[in-house]
Amino acid sequence: MTAAVVFVAHGSRAAAANDAHVAAAEQLAERTGVEVRPAFLELAEPSIPEAITAAVDAGADEVLVLPLFLYPGRHVATDIPALVEEARAARPSTPIELLEPFGADPAVISLLAEQVARRLA
Amino acid sequence: MTAAVVFVAHGSRAAAANDAHVAAAEQLAERTGVEVRPAFLELAEPSIPEAITAAVDAGADEVLVLPLFLYPGRHVATDIPALVEEARAARPSTPIELLEPFGADPAVISLLAEQVARRLA
Repeated sequence: MTAAVVFVAHGSRAAAANDAHVAAAEQLAERTGVEVRPAFLELAEPSIPEAITAAVDAGADEVLVLPLFLYPGRHVATDIPALVEEARAARPSTPIELLEPFGADPAVISLLAEQVARRLA
Repeated sequence: MTAAVVFVAHGSRAAAANDAHVAAAEQLAERTGVEVRPAFLELAEPSIPEAITAAVDAGADEVLVLPLFLYPGRHVATDIPALVEEARAARPSTPIELLEPFGADPAVISLLAEQVARRLA
């Protein structure tokens, strides 16, 4: 299996924010040894379906979609699943799995607690 | 010194997302032993200045504003600093420190790498 990760940020009008996401995708690829393609829900490109179909067309036989979102708002609950479904319809023979959003990991709170503790130490 | 943390999320039209932020603030308070007040940039209440002035009025003599934001978009670069400045003008005798946004911590990438590695294991 050759898995690829499509790493989804919200997207921003600020180029610095979008550039930071592209850099984070590169770091994530280095850490995991897996191809990681950045994608954006809105305001920047590539879109989520574009990044997924590009990963499949480049040879991935499994795509993991990782939403860099913190809370279960409408983007996580509705918008991203609909865009993943659109990509599945376009590339029906490849498994495309939508992972839990980043913020669902209890380790996020631990990281925040460390940030506060460092400041108060 | 009695420090309080004002923990800032974007805010959502989805009550589930705002409720998750209030719950996260409670968990963060438990982990750190510090008072943590949730606040929202938009779409939910309390606002950032409201939460800061409430913390000062309740007895905090230092307020740390922790933005739960991932990338340096306009909210981080412009909107949140302006609201913190508004709170400083309203309570000029109390130090109000704007911390780095959550996503500036390199440990965020480590956490994401662990999420991907767990899925591929």
